[in-house]
Amino acid sequence: MSPCPQLIGAERCLERIERMVSDAKSRAGADPRVPLRSLGLSLSGGDQADAIRTLTEELSRRYPHLSQSFCITNDALGAMATATNHGGIVLIAGTGSNCKLLNPDGSEWGCGGWGHMMGDEGSAYWIAHQAVKTVFDCMDNLEVPPHDIGYVKKAMMDYFQVSDRLELLPHLYRSFEKAKFAGFCRRLAEGARAGDALCCHLLGRAGAELGRQVGAVLPRAHPSLFLGDLGLPIVCVGSVWKSWERLQGGFLRVLEEARDKVPGGIFTRFSLLKLRGSSALGAARLGARKVGQELPLDQASNVHVFYTHVF
Amino acid sequence: MSPCPQLIGAERCLERIERMVSDAKSRAGADPRVPLRSLGLSLSGGDQADAIRTLTEELSRRYPHLSQSFCITNDALGAMATATNHGGIVLIAGTGSNCKLLNPDGSEWGCGGWGHMMGDEGSAYWIAHQAVKTVFDCMDNLEVPPHDIGYVKKAMMDYFQVSDRLELLPHLYRSFEKAKFAGFCRRLAEGARAGDALCCHLLGRAGAELGRQVGAVLPRAHPSLFLGDLGLPIVCVGSVWKSWERLQGGFLRVLEEARDKVPGGIFTRFSLLKLRGSSALGAARLGARKVGQELPLDQASNVHVFYTHVF
Repeated sequence: MSPCPQLIGAERCLERIERMVSDAKSRAGADPRVPLRSLGLSLSGGDQADAIRTLTEELSRRYPHLSQSFCITNDALGAMATATNHGGIVLIAGTGSNCKLLNPDGSEWGCGGWGHMMGDEGSAYWIAHQAVKTVFDCMDNLEVPPHDIGYVKKAMMDYFQVSDRLELLPHLYRSFEKAKFAGFCRRLAEGARAGDALCCHLLGRAGAELGRQVGAVLPRAHPSLFLGDLGLPIVCVGSVWKSWERLQGGFLRVLEEARDKVPGGIFTRFSLLKLRGSSALGAARLGARKVGQELPLDQASNVHVFYTHVF
Repeated sequence: MSPCPQLIGAERCLERIERMVSDAKSRAGADPRVPLRSLGLSLSGGDQADAIRTLTEELSRRYPHLSQSFCITNDALGAMATATNHGGIVLIAGTGSNCKLLNPDGSEWGCGGWGHMMGDEGSAYWIAHQAVKTVFDCMDNLEVPPHDIGYVKKAMMDYFQVSDRLELLPHLYRSFEKAKFAGFCRRLAEGARAGDALCCHLLGRAGAELGRQVGAVLPRAHPSLFLGDLGLPIVCVGSVWKSWERLQGGFLRVLEEARDKVPGGIFTRFSLLKLRGSSALGAARLGARKVGQELPLDQASNVHVFYTHVF
C-alpha cells in the first residue's frame, strides 16, 4: 500500500492504515482484535527516519491491536522485495518518479523522489507539465515548439475543460491536485499512439529523463548486479511504463552514454521487469524478515521481464 | 496596490481593498463614507476579464461607499502608466515575473505572468528554485553543477533552517509559501556580490530568462517605441533588478540575439527605467482617465533611467 503521509497528512494516513489492515485481517478470516506478528508497509515517503519513527509510535499507541512489530520502508524497497532478493534498480514512473538502487549488501542509493516541485522528471506529472508548458511558451512566443502544438493544445483544453490559459490556472494553484494534473498524461500517451509528433517527442524526453536517473545511481551499483542472465535488473513501476515503446528511444540513448560510468565494461545488458502483483507482497516479506521469518519468493509469478537490451 | 486574488482568495482581496481605500480616504482627510469618483486598481492577476467583472461587481455591491467607478488593470499597466504615456515594456521580476508590452495605440502583448507552476522565469522564486534544484541534482548525481555548490548548499540549509534535503520538503509542499521560498534569492544575491561563482551563474541565467521575455514581445512592438532618445523603454519592477549588474551579461546576450526580430534595424538601443514611487500612481491615473480626467504625469520624479544600452 502507499498512502503518502506527505500528501494526505499524518492523521488520514494512520486511519487509512488501520482500516486497511483490519479489513485485510477480516477478509483472511482472522480476528481484527488480534495483533499481527509483524506488519510490513511500503510507503511513498518512507525514507524519512523521523517520520517513520513517529508513524510507528503512533500506530502502536493508537492501535495496539494492529501488530506486534512494524517494518516501514519506502515504496521502491517494497517493489524490489517483490521482484528479487538480489537487488537491482527500482524505477518508479507513475504520478511522480523515483529511482532507487539496492545493492546485494543492503546498501541503498537514490535519485529523485522529491516530488513535483523539485523533480519528478519522467513521471506522468512531469510529462503533463512539459506538455502544458510547451503550449504556454508557444502561445507566449517564448519558445518555438519542436512540433506543432495543435493536438496537445486541444487535448489540454478538453481534459481540463477550459477555453483559455487563464481558466487553466486554478488547476495549477487554488484547486491543484497532482493526480488530476498528471492524469492529462494519459491523453498524451494516446496522442503518441495516434502518431502526434509532439506527444512522441515528450514521451521520448521522459524516457531520457528516466534513463538519466538510472545513470545517476549506476556508479554505486555492485558489480554482481550486472552479471546475471538479465544483466542489470530494473524493476519498472507506474503507469508511464505502459508507453515503453515511446520512452524507449530516449531511455536507450541516455543509457548508452552512461555505460562508461560502470568500470570494467561489465554493463553489457539490462532488463526491464514489471511486477505482476502488488509491491505490498515485498513489504510483507520485509515485515516477516524483521521477525526472523523468510517468506518464499515466487519470482516467476511476481515479475515479468518485458524488455532486455544488449548493448 | 497588488493583492493578488489568485493567491489570497477573493474574500480577503475584497476586504483588503476596502480597508486600504477607507484608510487612504481618512489619511487624506476625506470622509470614508463618501464614494470616490473613480478608483484605479493595479492588481497582479488583473488580466482576467471574468475575475475583474466579478471583483468590480462585488466591490460595488458590498461597499457602495467605496467609489462610483472602478478601473482594474494588471500590475504591469499600473507601472507603465506611472512611468510614461507613450508605452513600452514593463518587465516585472519580483517574487514572480511577468513581461508586458504596451503599444502607443493601447494594444497589449504579454509573456509570462502564469505563476511559479508555469513559468516565473527570472523571478526571485525562479532563482531560488534553480539554486535549490542545482543542489538537489548535484547531491543526487543527476547533474554536474556548473560551479561548486558549497556556498549555495550552506546558505540553503541556513535560510530554511534545515539539516538535510528531506527536512526542506515541507517548505516545498505542506507549508509552502511562495514569498518565503523566493526570499532565499536574497542570500543568492549576497553570494553573487561576494563573488560565489554559482550565485553569479544563476543570476546571469535569470538575466537571460528576462531577456527572452522581452524578445518574445519584441515582434509586436510599434516602431515608434524604438525611436525616442532612450530607445526602447523597459520599466523594471521588482527586487531582482537590484542585482542588475549580475543579470546584465545574460540579459544583453539574449537581446543582442533578439535584435533581428525587429525589422528595419531600428532596435539600436534600449533603456531600463525604475519607478521612484508606487505603481499605484499609474493605477490612479488610469482610474481618473476612465472618468475623463487626465492627471498630470511628472515623469522626472516618477522614474529613473538606470541603464541605457547602445548596440
